[in-house]
Amino acid sequence: MSSDRITPRTLKGFRDFLPAAMMQREQIIDTAKQVYRSFGYAPIDTPALEYLEILTGKGSDETDRQMYRFEDAGGRQVGMRFDLTVPLARYCAQHINELGTPFKRYHIAPVWRGENTHRGRYREFMQCDFDTIGSQSLVTDIEVAVVIHELLNQIGISDFTLRINNRQVLNGLLEQLGLRDQATPILRALDKLAKTDAETVMEEMTRQSTATTEQAAKILSLVQVTGTNGEILDQLEKLADGHEATLEGIEALRHVIEGTQAAGVAQDALVLDVSIARGLDYYTGTIYETFLNALPQIGSVCSGGRYDNLTGVYTKQELPGVGASLGLDRLLAAMEELGLLQGHRTPAKLLVTFFDRDRLSDYLKICTALRRRGLAVELFPEPKKLGQQLKYANRQGFEYALIAGTQEFEGQRCQIKDLSTGESHNVDLDEQCEQLANWLQSHSPTPASEHAG
Amino acid sequence: MSSDRITPRTLKGFRDFLPAAMMQREQIIDTAKQVYRSFGYAPIDTPALEYLEILTGKGSDETDRQMYRFEDAGGRQVGMRFDLTVPLARYCAQHINELGTPFKRYHIAPVWRGENTHRGRYREFMQCDFDTIGSQSLVTDIEVAVVIHELLNQIGISDFTLRINNRQVLNGLLEQLGLRDQATPILRALDKLAKTDAETVMEEMTRQSTATTEQAAKILSLVQVTGTNGEILDQLEKLADGHEATLEGIEALRHVIEGTQAAGVAQDALVLDVSIARGLDYYTGTIYETFLNALPQIGSVCSGGRYDNLTGVYTKQELPGVGASLGLDRLLAAMEELGLLQGHRTPAKLLVTFFDRDRLSDYLKICTALRRRGLAVELFPEPKKLGQQLKYANRQGFEYALIAGTQEFEGQRCQIKDLSTGESHNVDLDEQCEQLANWLQSHSPTPASEHAG
Repeated sequence: MSSDRITPRTLKGFRDFLPAAMMQREQIIDTAKQVYRSFGYAPIDTPALEYLEILTGKGSDETDRQMYRFEDAGGRQVGMRFDLTVPLARYCAQHINELGTPFKRYHIAPVWRGENTHRGRYREFMQCDFDTIGSQSLVTDIEVAVVIHELLNQIGISDFTLRINNRQVLNGLLEQLGLRDQATPILRALDKLAKTDAETVMEEMTRQSTATTEQAAKILSLVQVTGTNGEILDQLEKLADGHEATLEGIEALRHVIEGTQAAGVAQDALVLDVSIARGLDYYTGTIYETFLNALPQIGSVCSGGRYDNLTGVYTKQELPGVGASLGLDRLLAAMEELGLLQGHRTPAKLLVTFFDRDRLSDYLKICTALRRRGLAVELFPEPKKLGQQLKYANRQGFEYALIAGTQEFEGQRCQIKDLSTGESHNVDLDEQCEQLANWLQSHSPTPASEHAG
Repeated sequence: MSSDRITPRTLKGFRDFLPAAMMQREQIIDTAKQVYRSFGYAPIDTPALEYLEILTGKGSDETDRQMYRFEDAGGRQVGMRFDLTVPLARYCAQHINELGTPFKRYHIAPVWRGENTHRGRYREFMQCDFDTIGSQSLVTDIEVAVVIHELLNQIGISDFTLRINNRQVLNGLLEQLGLRDQATPILRALDKLAKTDAETVMEEMTRQSTATTEQAAKILSLVQVTGTNGEILDQLEKLADGHEATLEGIEALRHVIEGTQAAGVAQDALVLDVSIARGLDYYTGTIYETFLNALPQIGSVCSGGRYDNLTGVYTKQELPGVGASLGLDRLLAAMEELGLLQGHRTPAKLLVTFFDRDRLSDYLKICTALRRRGLAVELFPEPKKLGQQLKYANRQGFEYALIAGTQEFEGQRCQIKDLSTGESHNVDLDEQCEQLANWLQSHSPTPASEHAG
């Protein structure tokens, strides 16, 4: 048999998630779901595979090139989705009459791109998108900012900055400079301002567009206006010099900032930053980026914006929308670097040791009683030496181990070992484990831990 | 542009999930996660794509034929996973030294099979597996039965029967009849007993194996012993006639039944059924099937069993295991037929109408205050006519709509419309919305509904 064995391995750029890492992912995904739902966004799902024609030409040349594509057994040309926006567009074109508007959805699902893995990119990763489709109301733009703010807070991150801007303002300023048709290369260059210096950005602008060095310098001075949000808005208004589209964009920003604050977002958590551009072609209004103040260099962990026409490729019906996407992998990498992650390998709080081989029924009863009281409890399956069982409990990251033999059962109590301190406690063991459950629920040796159950 | 438009459509056998259907799926998946976690099973994930050699030859000829496979841009032969068991075997072979044993994992993820869609099968569907790897202890077999029982109960189904059997018993009985080497075709025929009559099963047995009509009749009489679980065990013991392996299987069944009952499973919810066979080659011990009493004909909604050697194809280390898988699509189809599903299209309980266009800040504040008190609340984004907003609220399945204009705000109250009865209630509106939140949390017009938030 051994000569036929197959080496167990995964494809480059693809990952196995071990329990500790997966629990962290699930915790963030569950939080995102709960926050999205609390605003009325409903879940949807779409197929991993789509007709190739649905997917090609909707992203960039790069995503087209990176797409996993093949001919299926029925001779159809198919591709694996590379984002959740193109499937959303196809889905809305197909179902919007049944869905009605406003249509608020979230979609948390894997996507696939055959990227160069040496840049630390993965070929399979999770996207966590939320969008409101079919409304041009700025209330939906305000809400996106409030959702992002609430999402980060609920995940346990308080020190972040949500940066917003409006593409109408950027486009208006470029129009005033006679550079409207050069928006794409100029805004793509501008996007790099967060990671490099102004000189490099200006150099790229003049190289990639028709902008002169003077114009590039002007653009940089325009987008680098500083002050409070109100001061920036006032300066922009002057710079707009009566230009209607620019003024409309400025008014929209003012409205979004005011609404976001009315909804309870602290003034310093939302920053108007005219230099953020999100160089993707389809954004047309408000744009959002979110940076962790302790780690701005990792880039935005939650980004999005408003677009005018989601479904134009598939239907004549024009559907505007606004939304954002949480970058799960980037956020987890950041949280790891900031020491915000737990290392538990088990979702359970308590290990019930199999101490006395004649007491299995009792252990089973205790586990059931505690679970019915909302506790996550694991029973060690074999009556091995206690030391071995406790070693397992420590390695897995249980908070407590329960030890009970004949002596304990006769005295109607059990021993609870706190695995972080090594201390033992005697706890009463009534028929329904009420006291034990209360004891466990009121004790938590590791204050930051948030166990399931 | 219209001539270039692409028809929005999905591939045959693949599905879009609209919000109402997706919320039902998420509710069951969340329940499964919570139950699995409460027993200490931890989540894992593996890639959708694997090297083809990992996947081929590990399922059946049928799964090999149905697999989505292609050559990636790097010239690798790859396939999309068709179940979660083969990836688990590869994963354990690769990581078991780091994971340690017992290794308890759950895995909830989509799999892909190019099946004939005319049988009502899908080409993309979700599997919800849980297994304990690395222990031969029957405690882990007991636990699988307890998990299944708890899972169905938590999903809201109480009228079901968990049927168990043991492959050692079946194999032992076949051995006594000199038919041990014919186990695969005989057990596959036996599996059909739930869906057809004894005569047809006997006919298939004699056609597909070397069994004579007399032997087939004997097998059917053996597996159709009836009585209480205890009576069946006693009868089997007699039939075993001292045959060691059979007796071992009977002893294991006795142990599993006793332990399951000690853990609180009602006696009539667990039925020993010697005729269930689960004709897959790899099962070697306890096997499980779960039928809804109101709809037995749809087949088992949660099935599994014990296997001796999960990882033999990849490593010389032998890893036994036991687990089961919830059939999400089948269960949802059954629940729909039984009228157990909700039709809500929104996860939110309350729609705050945008009644007075000058009061946006107030509406935003109310929404934030209610969300901070754990309620899921949606704000209608446009100050449309109230009738239109209420129509939207009804269509989406909100329970309540909040209406407040100048008059209400001045009187520090709001109007809450119960959308199921049409009644309106005046509720006080204090600064933090405490009374409103309490009112909403204590009222629920649709008793069966379980909204998020």
